[in-house]
Formats: sequence, C-alpha cells, structure tokens
Amino acid sequence: MSKLWQKGYSVHQLVERYEAAQNSLLDTRLIRHDVWGSLAHVTMLHHIGALNNEELQELQNAFREVLAQESTHEFTVQPSDEDVHTSIENYLATRTGASGKKIHLARSRNDQVLVDLRLYGKEQLHLIARRLLDLSAAFLAFARATIEVPLPGYTHMQRGMLSSVGLWATSFAEALLDDEQLLAAAYQLNDQSPLGSAAGYGVPLPIDRQLVADLLGFARVQNNVIYVQNARGKIEGAIVQALMQIMLDLSKFAQDALLFTTSEYSFLQVPQELCDGSSIMPQKRNLSIMELVRARTQTMLALQQQILGIVSGLPSGYNMDYQETKRPFMEALDLVQENLEICTLLVNNLQVNEEKAIAACTFELFAADRAYEMALQENIPFRDAYRIVGKEVTAQLDQQLPFPVESKEQLVTRLRARNHLGGAGNPGLSQAEQRLSTAQASWDARSTTFTQAIQALVGTTTIHFAETEEE
Amino acid sequence: MSKLWQKGYSVHQLVERYEAAQNSLLDTRLIRHDVWGSLAHVTMLHHIGALNNEELQELQNAFREVLAQESTHEFTVQPSDEDVHTSIENYLATRTGASGKKIHLARSRNDQVLVDLRLYGKEQLHLIARRLLDLSAAFLAFARATIEVPLPGYTHMQRGMLSSVGLWATSFAEALLDDEQLLAAAYQLNDQSPLGSAAGYGVPLPIDRQLVADLLGFARVQNNVIYVQNARGKIEGAIVQALMQIMLDLSKFAQDALLFTTSEYSFLQVPQELCDGSSIMPQKRNLSIMELVRARTQTMLALQQQILGIVSGLPSGYNMDYQETKRPFMEALDLVQENLEICTLLVNNLQVNEEKAIAACTFELFAADRAYEMALQENIPFRDAYRIVGKEVTAQLDQQLPFPVESKEQLVTRLRARNHLGGAGNPGLSQAEQRLSTAQASWDARSTTFTQAIQALVGTTTIHFAETEEE
Amino acid sequence: MSKLWQKGYSVHQLVERYEAAQNSLLDTRLIRHDVWGSLAHVTMLHHIGALNNEELQELQNAFREVLAQESTHEFTVQPSDEDVHTSIENYLATRTGASGKKIHLARSRNDQVLVDLRLYGKEQLHLIARRLLDLSAAFLAFARATIEVPLPGYTHMQRGMLSSVGLWATSFAEALLDDEQLLAAAYQLNDQSPLGSAAGYGVPLPIDRQLVADLLGFARVQNNVIYVQNARGKIEGAIVQALMQIMLDLSKFAQDALLFTTSEYSFLQVPQELCDGSSIMPQKRNLSIMELVRARTQTMLALQQQILGIVSGLPSGYNMDYQETKRPFMEALDLVQENLEICTLLVNNLQVNEEKAIAACTFELFAADRAYEMALQENIPFRDAYRIVGKEVTAQLDQQLPFPVESKEQLVTRLRARNHLGGAGNPGLSQAEQRLSTAQASWDARSTTFTQAIQALVGTTTIHFAETEEE
Amino acid sequence: MSKLWQKGYSVHQLVERYEAAQNSLLDTRLIRHDVWGSLAHVTMLHHIGALNNEELQELQNAFREVLAQESTHEFTVQPSDEDVHTSIENYLATRTGASGKKIHLARSRNDQVLVDLRLYGKEQLHLIARRLLDLSAAFLAFARATIEVPLPGYTHMQRGMLSSVGLWATSFAEALLDDEQLLAAAYQLNDQSPLGSAAGYGVPLPIDRQLVADLLGFARVQNNVIYVQNARGKIEGAIVQALMQIMLDLSKFAQDALLFTTSEYSFLQVPQELCDGSSIMPQKRNLSIMELVRARTQTMLALQQQILGIVSGLPSGYNMDYQETKRPFMEALDLVQENLEICTLLVNNLQVNEEKAIAACTFELFAADRAYEMALQENIPFRDAYRIVGKEVTAQLDQQLPFPVESKEQLVTRLRARNHLGGAGNPGLSQAEQRLSTAQASWDARSTTFTQAIQALVGTTTIHFAETEEE
Repeated sequence: MSKLWQKGYSVHQLVERYEAAQNSLLDTRLIRHDVWGSLAHVTMLHHIGALNNEELQELQNAFREVLAQESTHEFTVQPSDEDVHTSIENYLATRTGASGKKIHLARSRNDQVLVDLRLYGKEQLHLIARRLLDLSAAFLAFARATIEVPLPGYTHMQRGMLSSVGLWATSFAEALLDDEQLLAAAYQLNDQSPLGSAAGYGVPLPIDRQLVADLLGFARVQNNVIYVQNARGKIEGAIVQALMQIMLDLSKFAQDALLFTTSEYSFLQVPQELCDGSSIMPQKRNLSIMELVRARTQTMLALQQQILGIVSGLPSGYNMDYQETKRPFMEALDLVQENLEICTLLVNNLQVNEEKAIAACTFELFAADRAYEMALQENIPFRDAYRIVGKEVTAQLDQQLPFPVESKEQLVTRLRARNHLGGAGNPGLSQAEQRLSTAQASWDARSTTFTQAIQALVGTTTIHFAETEEE
Repeated sequence: MSKLWQKGYSVHQLVERYEAAQNSLLDTRLIRHDVWGSLAHVTMLHHIGALNNEELQELQNAFREVLAQESTHEFTVQPSDEDVHTSIENYLATRTGASGKKIHLARSRNDQVLVDLRLYGKEQLHLIARRLLDLSAAFLAFARATIEVPLPGYTHMQRGMLSSVGLWATSFAEALLDDEQLLAAAYQLNDQSPLGSAAGYGVPLPIDRQLVADLLGFARVQNNVIYVQNARGKIEGAIVQALMQIMLDLSKFAQDALLFTTSEYSFLQVPQELCDGSSIMPQKRNLSIMELVRARTQTMLALQQQILGIVSGLPSGYNMDYQETKRPFMEALDLVQENLEICTLLVNNLQVNEEKAIAACTFELFAADRAYEMALQENIPFRDAYRIVGKEVTAQLDQQLPFPVESKEQLVTRLRARNHLGGAGNPGLSQAEQRLSTAQASWDARSTTFTQAIQALVGTTTIHFAETEEE
Repeated sequence: MSKLWQKGYSVHQLVERYEAAQNSLLDTRLIRHDVWGSLAHVTMLHHIGALNNEELQELQNAFREVLAQESTHEFTVQPSDEDVHTSIENYLATRTGASGKKIHLARSRNDQVLVDLRLYGKEQLHLIARRLLDLSAAFLAFARATIEVPLPGYTHMQRGMLSSVGLWATSFAEALLDDEQLLAAAYQLNDQSPLGSAAGYGVPLPIDRQLVADLLGFARVQNNVIYVQNARGKIEGAIVQALMQIMLDLSKFAQDALLFTTSEYSFLQVPQELCDGSSIMPQKRNLSIMELVRARTQTMLALQQQILGIVSGLPSGYNMDYQETKRPFMEALDLVQENLEICTLLVNNLQVNEEKAIAACTFELFAADRAYEMALQENIPFRDAYRIVGKEVTAQLDQQLPFPVESKEQLVTRLRARNHLGGAGNPGLSQAEQRLSTAQASWDARSTTFTQAIQALVGTTTIHFAETEEE
Repeated sequence: MSKLWQKGYSVHQLVERYEAAQNSLLDTRLIRHDVWGSLAHVTMLHHIGALNNEELQELQNAFREVLAQESTHEFTVQPSDEDVHTSIENYLATRTGASGKKIHLARSRNDQVLVDLRLYGKEQLHLIARRLLDLSAAFLAFARATIEVPLPGYTHMQRGMLSSVGLWATSFAEALLDDEQLLAAAYQLNDQSPLGSAAGYGVPLPIDRQLVADLLGFARVQNNVIYVQNARGKIEGAIVQALMQIMLDLSKFAQDALLFTTSEYSFLQVPQELCDGSSIMPQKRNLSIMELVRARTQTMLALQQQILGIVSGLPSGYNMDYQETKRPFMEALDLVQENLEICTLLVNNLQVNEEKAIAACTFELFAADRAYEMALQENIPFRDAYRIVGKEVTAQLDQQLPFPVESKEQLVTRLRARNHLGGAGNPGLSQAEQRLSTAQASWDARSTTFTQAIQALVGTTTIHFAETEEE
C-alpha cells in the first residue's frame, strides 16, 4: 500500500526496512485503539460540520468492519503499510472513497499514535491493576495461614530476630498496595486526551477537543498542543517507572523464594510442577521461574532506561526517536503481567516446611529480647544490657556450645508478644484486606467509565478488550 | 568514638575506611532529622513507661543542645563515628549518662536511618515543589509576553507548522504542572512513619507506633515491619523517578534553548552574564548552563538507575547495600533544585529576536493550511488536497523560487485562528495559572502540617529547615 | 516433544509459557552453531572411545541432515521443544536411536548454549567488522572529495573556528578505526572454547577439551570450568560494550547530520529517497533515519545495561537468569549492523551545499587567528592578544556591523595553513586508509581460521553463514 | 582570580556556582598532569621558535614550583579559578609575567583537559592493574591451599555436582586475568596524545604534535583534531566499561561469599575484624564489606551509564556536557581500586569450614556420576541412564531416605578424577600463575615507558604518582 505522504518517488528499500523494523507487529496491537480514536474524531468532524450525516454513517460502518475483522485477526498491519494509521486510512479510502480521504482533516499521525498509546495504556493498566491486586490477595491469604509459623528474620543475610512466615508474606502484600498508588498516579497522568494537537501546533480549524476527550472517556484534555507531543515517551516513561516499582518487589520475593528453597534453608517447598530439571543432573528441581523474575526485573530496569534515555534531550516537537519508545513500552506492560501471574501461581502453591523453619530459630535470634528483659526488668540502660548480652553470646558462639531449642509454642508466644502495629502479633491483615478492596473498587470505577465511553462510541455493548498478547 | 556494637575487638582499618566512604559527610545533613526522630521516640518511651519524667526532660534538653549546635555547624558527624546515630547516641551518653544509654531501647539504627531519610525527603520535596512551581510561573509569565510572537514549529527538526514563542513556553509550564502530580504521589508514599520496625522484625515491647507517627507529622504508620525495611531504597527510588520526570522536561527546554540561540536559528538571545567564554576564541558566548542541564539529566538518569539497581534482587531484611542508596538520593534531590533554579534564571532573562523568528516563518509552514482551505472551501477530501499541495510545494522547493514573506500582522491572524483548546489562539494561560495556585496551596498545606508537628515536638517555633546544601 | 529432563510429571502450562517466552525464536538462529558444537563433541567422544566408528558416522550424517534442513528453513525450534539443544537431540534420537541418546554424555545444555553463543558471536562480529570498515571507508571517500570545503567548526553549538567538511568526515572514520580495536579485543575474549565445562563442574571422564577447541577453530580453551559458566553474560556484555562504542560515534554523526540538514544550517542535503514525509504537512522531508540512529543508540545503551544488570550479583554456577541475556545480545548484534548500513547509505549519498557552508564561515571564526598573528608578528603575549581581539570582536558583535566575507580561495588558504598532524591541511587520509587495510586484513585472517575449521568439521566447503536476520 | 576569557563583565553568581559544582575539587587531582602537559607544550613552542630560551627556562622553573607545591598540598584549585588550567596559567602569569601569558598559544583548555585526563587515566590504570593482579594472585594462593577441599557445586542455587573450594577460587583468578586483557585494550585506546587539537579544529601554526606526544610518553598522536575532541567521554567510557567487567566478577564473588558465610551454608568463615555488628542485636557479625561490593557494582554500572549517556547524541565539537563525565570517570577509577583491595583483604583472610563443606556434599551431587558409570560400563545410552537414575533419585528424595555420606578421601578421589583441562583434578594453577606473571611484566613495561618520559620531562627522577585519593 502507498504511504500517506507519498508524492511520486519511492523511498530507498533499506530506509524503508530500517524504519519499519518491528513496527507493523507492534501496530497490530493498536488497531482497535486507532479505530476508537478515529470514531471520536469523525464524530467531532461531523459535529463541527466538516462531515455530513452520510459520510459519518459510512465511516462508522467501515470502522466497525475493521473492529470486527480485528477481533478475528483478519485485519492486520502489513510491513508495507508503515503503520496502523496508514492501514486503516487506506482501508477506509478503499471502502468509502471520498469519505475515507476526509478523515485525516485536522489531525496528524503523531496525534493518532498518541491517542492509540494512551488508550492502550489504559487498557493494559486495568489488567495490571487486577493482577497486582490478585497477587496481593494471594499473599494475604498465604499470610493468614502462616502468621504464626516461626521463621528467622534476617539482616545482612544473617539470622537477626524472630519473624514469621506470614509476617514475611504480608510485607509483599503491603508493598504491592503501595505500588497500586503509584500505578494510579501514572494512570491519571495517562488519562488525558491528546487529540487535536495535530502535528503539535494545532490547526486553524474550530475543532472541539473536549468533545473528543469526552467521547473517549478521558478525564481531561491535555491542553497545550506542543506539550501533547512532547509528552510522548514521557508518560510511557512514568507508567514504566510505576511498573518498575512492582518488579522491585517481585524481585525481592524471588530472591527470598530462591534462598528459602535451597537445600541449606529448606523453609519453603514448591511442587515439582512449578520447577524444571537439568539435562545432565537427574536430581535437579530448579525454581527457574524465580530466577527469571529476578532477571526480568533487570529487563524492566533496562526498558525504563531505554524509554527515558531516548526521550532525554530531544528538542520540542515530534521526533522520529519517539517511535522507538513504543516497543519497550509494550514490552514493559506485558512483562509486568507475566511476572505478576507467575508469582501468584507460586504463592498459591507455596508449602512451608515448618520443622525446618522452627529448627532455624536458634538462640541468637533472642539476644535482643534478652537485653530488653534486662533493660525493663532490671532497669539496666539498654546499651549496657546490650553489651552484657553481647559478651555472653560471643562466648557461646566462640565455644560452639549447644543451646536449648524452643518449642513451637514458646516461639508462638514470643511472636504474639510483638503486638504493636505491624508486628507478627498484630500484622493488620484485615486492614490490608480492606485497603485492597478499596483499591479494587476504585479501579472498577475507572474501568466502568472507560468501558462505557468506548461502548457508546462503538455503538455496541460487547467490546473486545485485550488480555496480554503474545508477541 | 566507639561503635555502638563494639565488644572488645577492633575492626580492620581498611574495612572501616571502605565502609565509611563518604558516609559521615552525608550523615551530617541528617543531624536534625535524627534528633526529631529521637525526640518522638523518647516521648513515646516515656508514654509507655520506659523512661521517667526526669529522664525524658534530660534527654529533651540534650537533643535541643544538638539542634542548637547543628544550626551553627558545631555538631558534625566524624568519620570515626560511623554514622549520625552513633554520634548522637554517644553525645547523649556523655551528656546524660544512663538516660542516653536508654534511648536505643526498642529501635535500631535501620529504623533511624529510615526515619531520617523520610524526614529529609519531605523537607527537600517541599523545596523542590516550590522551585518547580516558580519555574512554571516563570514560563507562564514569559508566555504572556510572547504568546503572539510567531515562531516556526518544528517536527523532525524541520520546519513544520506555525507556532508561537509563548505557546512553546507554555508547553513547559504545563509539563511541570504534570510533574507536580507525580511529585505529590511520591511525597505521599514517603509520608509514612517507619519507626517501630526496629531491625525489621518489631520488638516484644508495647511500643506505640501511631503516637510516634503523629508526633512527627506523618500521614500514617507504615504498617508491616518487614516492609518498612524493604522499602529502603524503594521509596527513594520512587522520589527520584519523579525527579527524573522533571529533568526530562528541563532537558528538552535546554536542547531547544541551545538550538534557538545558535547563530543559525537566533530566535532567542541570552544576556552575556549568563554565558561563559573560551580560553582561545575571543568571540565565544557559550550557553554552557543549558549544556549542563542536558548533561545533568543523564546524571539524574544514572542516579535513578543506581538506586533501583542497588535495590533490585536484594533479599528481605536490611542489607548493607541500602547504605549506598543514600548518596545518590541526596545528590538527586540537590541536582533537581540546582537545575530548576538555573532554568528559572534563564527563563527570566530570555530575550526574543522577533525579527529572526518572523523571518523563519517561511511559506512551507502553511502548506497544511492551504490543504485545509481546499478541503473546507472546495470540499476536496483532505488526502487529495494534501497531494495537490504537496506537488505545488515540491515544485517550489525544487526550483528554489522566492516566496512572499508574511507580515507580523498576517502571522498573528493565523495564530489567533488556532483558537481551539491549547492552540496558540487559546493557550489557556489563566487556567494554567489557576492550576499552579491550586498546587501551591496543597504544598503549603502539607508544609504546615509538617512544620507544626516538628515545632511542637522540638518545643520552639523557630525550626531550621534546609536549603539545598553544598556538598 | 518431551523435555530432556522429563521424568513422569508435567510442568505447569503457565510455567512453561513463562519460561519459554521467545526462546524458540531466538534458538532457531542457533541451529547450525549447535550442530557444529555437537559435531566437535561427538568427534571427541569417538576419539576417547565413547562412541564407535559406526555411531560417529551415523551421528555425523544426522547432523548434516539438520544443517541441510536448517539452510532451507525446514528445521526450526518449536516452543514445545524448550530449546535448540532439545530439538536437535530429539531429532537425533528419532533418526539414529541409541547413538542419538549418547551424544549428551559428558556435556550439559549450559555447555552447549555457551558454545552456540560464542560461535554465533564470532560469526556476527565478522559481519560487524566488515560493515564497520565499510562505513569508515565511506567516510574517507567522502572526505577525499570535501577536504577543502570550508565549514564552521562548532564548540558549545556556537561557531568557533574554521573547519572543513572533509575534516569532519575523517573524524568519524578514525573513531570507527579505534572502535575496531575494541571490537577485536572483545572478539579475542569470545574466542575461547567453553566445551567440557558440562554443568560448570566438569565431568569424571577423560574428555579432551583441547581437541574440541581445535576442531571448532577456537583460539584457546577457556580453562576453569566454573569460570566458563560464570562467563555467560560477561562475554556477551563485553561484546555489547564494544558495540556501544560504535553506536556512540554513529549517534554523534546522526546528530550532526540532523543539524546540518535543517533549514537553518543547510550545509548538507540528502536525496529525497532517503527521507520520509508527513501525513499532514505536504512539504516535509524528514531525515528520520538519523533520528532513529540517535534513538537506537539509547536502545543499545539499554541492552548493555540489561545484560550487565542481569549478570551483576549472581552467585557462581549456572543461573536461569542467564537465559535472559540471549535476546539483548542478539538484538545488539543486529542493531549495530542495521545502523552501520544505514549510515553508510547516507554517507554515500550526502551532498554538500558549498555555498551555504561558505556563507556560514563568518568573521568570528577567525578571531583566534587574529590573536595568533598579533602574538607571532608583534610578539604580544597570547593572553594579551586574546583580550585585545576580544574587545574588538565584542564591539563588532554588539554593533552588528557588517564584515567582509572571505572567498572560497581565501578560506582554502586558511585551511591549508592548518598543516600540522590531523589538521585540515594535513588530515592523514592515506594513513587512515592504510590503517583500514591493516584492520581488514586481520579480520580476514580471523575469518579464514574460523571458516576453515568449520568447513573441515562439517566436511564440506560450502558453509551457510548468516547475514543479519530478521526477527 | 579572573577567568581566562573574562572581558569586562561578570558572570551571574548563580551561573558560576551552577557551572563550578565540584569541579575545583576534581581538578585538584589533575594539577601535576596539567603541568606535565604544559611542560611538553612549552618545550614544543620553544622548539618551533615561539618561545626563546629564557622564556622556556622561566616557565619550566615555575612549573616545577607548582609540582613542588602540589606534592605538599600547598597548590590547590580554588572554586573561583574555574579550573586547574586557569589556576596554573594565573600562577604562571603572576610568577613570570609575559612568559606565562604566552603558554596558551596554540592550545585550548579543551586540549588540556583531554591530556590531563589521559595522563590521569594512565596513572590510575597502572594502579588498577597492580591491584587486579594482586587479587588474582590472592585467589590462586587460596586455591593452592584448598583445591582438594570438597564443596557442592551449585546451579540454579541448588546442589548440582561435586566441586572444590580451590576450583571455585581459581574461577575468579581466571576471570580477572581475562579482565586484564580488556583493561589493556582500554589502556591502549587511552594512550594517544590529544595535544594540538586546540579547540578541536587545529591551529594555523606549525606545531609539532609528534614531539609533544613523545615527550609525554604517549604511544601515538591521536590524529584528526575533531576526533580528538569527540573522543572526550568516549575513551573514559571505554575505560569504565573495562572496570565494569572487573566489578562484575567481584560482585559474583561477593554474592558467593555472602551465601557461603550464612548460618545455613557455613562453608566459609571470616575473622571478626572484617565484620561489623548491629546496634540492637548483640550477636551479629555482618560481612557488610561484601554487601557493599555487591552494591558498588551497581554504582559502577550507573557510572558507566552516566558517562555513555551524557556523551550519546552530542553533536561534534566540544560541548560543556563533557565536563560532567569527569566526576564519574574519577569515581569509577577510585571505586574499582577500593573494591579490589577489600576483596584481596577478604581472600587473604578466608577460612574454610571443611567439615560443613564435606557434610553438604550429599548424594544427589553424584547422580550424574552414576549415570556416567552406567553409560560407560554398561553401554546404556546416556539419556536412558539419566532417566533410570532420575527415577531412583526422585524416589529417594520423595521418601527422604538416609544416604551414605562419603568420606573426605572418597570425595578427593572423585575430585581427582575430574582431570581434564580446568577440572578440579587439573585446575591449571601453574598456567594461571604464568599468565599472571606475563601480564605483570607487560604492565611493568608500560609503566617504565610512561615514568621515564615524565621524569625526563620534569627533569627529576622522583616523580610523585598518585595512590587512590580520598575525595
């Protein structure tokens, strides 16, 4: 198909190939979003008199055809099309003639790709939020069952103080709930309609940008037309920054899971179905999925780096560099979802080896407790008590003397005594569950706003929304 | 001075030097925050009966001494002290004897450094928000004066469509206002009290974490004690991610400023006082400050990378790695402020060379306008009009024919015709100013909450808050 | 097909999908390298008596079948196969029965993927070196034609001193020749045979690692078996670091090309066939390819970051994390080649607008020359001369006085006077060409060693080597 | 003091402060290198007749004064001086009058900072190479003592096959020897004289660049004057890339050391003098130095990122951005040395808990050995043997049956059987020691060339070379 801007000469093949790269593959994901944006645009053009009733009708029908074909994978973007906007405009021109050639009035492809990515981002953020809250819920459910299972608490990878399996699990649930706030802030930034910026300098036409924003369910118009274009990559970057925060938590969970399932720690066990093996060592059951979570956190960090690096230092106005942010943006959105899912699967299948966990709760975990007793019961200043206990413990460690092991009951008693806010004896599971519900409700409300607008625009109640797609 | 944990042996000198690095220098910035945290902690210890009235009084007095000495730079952290917490505990022990040795009951240095950095972060974020809003205001003031000064609008670094100097300036004002939202989200994440997590596993003592949070003016307690420790670096990372967004905008402004002040563009001029020269070429007036803004954006990107990279993949619980996030965090907070200030200085001194700007508004900027006219007046579908105009323009460019230059009046008329939301004829300066005031008010409210809590805690109305400090 | 390590249970589908990701796609690129490695391995097994003559013959035939099928894209790696090693072992087992089930004796897949990537790296580095030297040659050819075309030399993006188009072009040729040295160092690091490390701890069998290395044309055996495994990602990282250096130079060229082709500079022109257009502005001819070179430099930086980030801090021994370095490694190898090619295309088509270039050589470029004259002819100390000229020039600039423009002849005379090493009057083009030939010869020698070994191993003189492949 | 380029107006204070940042602190490290470069420059000016004998003598004396004062820290760079070049030129002008004002003829500060950093880089790379080879030697010495101490070999953080402590230590020695090659390649790139490029476009004067290069002991002149300037940051980046490779290895060692010293693994012990403690938990002995090595690897990664990020996409010619690469470059050079030293200290003090290591060599490590036996002795194809053993082992693991523990003698016999190249029974320690000596000799040769040139230039045999300096 011809390029939209072609005027009597051909682009060098190497240039065409170099520029296209994987663009058509990526743009195939944006077909429906591009149609939604175009539907809003033509409705507005009709509203201001630039299209008549018939033209509008004709275009709406053609757009709905595209949507129908997209849902069955019949409509795709071909490498020769340059991008999704060209594919669709060419299709429209073929189907409707003059009407199709009118749709690009008062807009630019820069405009379109912005709206496509904003809508794609919204859609994906909904999926991400759901998966994030699912994982948080999984951690809380696991915590409910294990809140009184003793576990050594580590600092510097050395045994420090008494902890519990459930307390550990809850820490991830709360971290994810904090991430949800950052995700919501990124969502809000993304929830601005770019349409009407055209090539970044507006148009000498009386377009109605608010109408378009409303039709698409955006919370507001992104006002300044230059800023609209300059925000390309910036908003994607803000979203990926929020995703990076999620991955940060998952990478910590992964590292803990890898440690706790070694032969040496053995506090946790994972069903064989979640492990893989070795081609040479018959005995191996590797928790490769957690190694991959750890590695893919670095991939996310690199994607964040890539987007922000590309955008830094670019002059105002559209620059082709922006095209290169599309792929890392989409990959980041996929990546976080896969990782949330795999962690949820693991949490739902984690088994605790209580015996091993208890056996690891050796006496040195209670050295501080001992100093506290001296401080409170004998009114010895803490620092002095600390030094006295320090000498005792050092002596014991040096002589490698045996120590009385505590029973599970004794350990549980100790756990319950940590009953201040957020301690093992008062972990606040109900409050976390409450926070989770509230977050879920606010995402549901956002989703309703978005879905209802798109349904009204498309004129149907059955909208095809994406799950994470394979590349 | 001795280490808090020393018990009869000395650490190898190389280890001491390797670990300390620049820590005492950095910790000198945290003296007052550490005192505030400790004041809240001892008030709580008194409240739960672990300190008596006299002890509390004695400690409060000693803490106020530290604050007084800090404000005159008499109290500093020495390399031999390991950290600010040790310096202060040692001082307290010397001044008060037994009372001082009691203050570490039910807490850990990990706890303290967390609260110090949270308070430091809050303080700095207030300064950053103020500077950010100042710069946004400077852009808006400049825009008011230049909204009808024509300027070519570029895409792909090539002349695209008509723009205006003021429209360009407004784009940065709005970008910064969006950044303010991300900054507020990061502030909110940071506005959680970590105290009471101790070494990350709580304490078997009935401490009152909510009281401590209230005394320090935190919005809430960060609940799970393991998560508290695991959030080290994470929250700093979230703040630096928000700062990176600001730098992204500044780097774009810098790149534009550098281009627009070249001999070739010459749209903008900068007073000699903001430029520097060459040791060899007598004629040079370099806008080095904008080159540095551009470069320091990369520095910010590296700081973000450093913090998130350090934290990724660490197991739960305190790890010494976290110490390494303190320096990039503090540097990032400084960096953004210096860059906001220098950009404000430049914006306040930018001069427009209107003649040059108008002369650059050559005919090709209006090719799309011409196609729009044909589309609207002659009902030629836009894509066809585009192709017709395309041929005309190509012919003109190929023959290098002279074109009629438009007068300023004609150009202004064209600008005014872009009167949809966010266009040059309707840039929304008042709305942006309104948004700016609202943001300012919300930061003022946050500041009041924070300041009043600290004043009440310290027992004085004159609190020393930091400006950006030199390293 | 079944996994090599499967023993009576199935892996959870989500785990399978999560782990596989794009692995089969990537591994399809490694088919022939895996076969080469296996051919060397079975030859060695035969040599030490672990395979008899018939078995060897049978296996060699089957491997040649795979090579034949690979060259026609009949043999591919399926997602269900997990990886290329499994695909091929399964194929062998099917074709040869017992012999095929013997080939994994004394090796591990970790071993295999290492050798595959080393061989793939060697192959690709040859292609990269060729393209790098081609581009360097293109710059030198362009420089020959333009060495006396005057051009302003910029510092701080401001006009500084007199330069020439050819001097500018030569700078890139020399930069690339320096990059070639780094590339060669990375090649050398990569040119070590990993085979025989097995799972990273060797095998209790008398394998002959030197023989395998010789058969594959490696320069040496990588000795310590743990280091072999630990070098995964490390060597890929070293290669990508060298590629990053190349991209650094290309990004500078791209930025210059973008500036010099703006309306404002106009020193360079590019044929329309290398530009693309706008969907809205009929006049646009965008040099998008150079914007993409600029952006893809950031992509390379992110790929480098990704590989090194994944590998940092991993414990010894194979970790699944390493799998995640394969994709960025392959992408980096592709990326640099595409960018070298596109820059070569541009350099071969660059046109100079001599008139514009000369017109930009305004008087301030010669302020230092004037000071030099005063210093040499009037024996005024340079710093004093500098200050005198500085005042003159400032006065002229402030009054915006017109200045005599110099003729091309005068400018060329000035260029020729810069006749010290590396100046415009003595650019050393012949020496650079000589250096280029030497580099080419050494890559040719490496290529011969490699190719001859593989040919001998495969038993044919027609080996299919890869060009950069589409993903 | 006045700026070199000052001509009757003052720079805005904020600009001055913003630009200076930490520059004077960094430049204080470059005093002697700047003097060396200047000594070579004035010798050349004298050689071409631009200075007479007396002037040369006067300047040489003054430069030697600076060197003398620098060695006693009397000469420093003040913030008001802008940079080291200004400090020294101002000093010269004060001491010698007209002669001092002549030294800047035919050069630029851009030229000077380049030569300063190249010389600084050479000096530091010598120190780094020495420390790297020291650490490699320490690993080899440790390996000699522990090559037959059995240790489980891990893959996926799970027990895989039999390894030995010495085999593990040797892997790091060899990795460092490979790093040495990359370091040497970076050294070679850096070993080019930039002087004579002036502001990047040469000078219309008959300067002798080869003479200057020879005087300073550079291997060659960096020819093209534009490339000279464009290499700023690029060469620093190449050096830091090599340093990153070193840190990669150290981070792996650190992670292993942290794991192997946990209560759970306990294979290694570290004297208390290398550990630190907790302010709250009296029992703690934390190997914080290894946590910091792990974290500082991320810092190095960020420094690499920072330098390369700053440089990417800059147009040709000096840009002020380059100044921002100086600090990360210097920090990276320091950082690697501190980390090499601390690791050497640890390796020299590592103690093995042989009992624990042997106890961890549980039966599953020998599952592959068992399959090999079946393959070789019973001629069962490996894959079938693997499956048979796999079933056996799985059964044993599932039933948690007790297994016979092997004696140290049995394990050593097994280790010795891995006698192929690089296996535990044939680790190649002597070859590694030989490689180490060869590397040492080549660095010694480089050092001699460099030192002799500088001694001749300065006219004394006692040159002050830097150790890593504190910031």
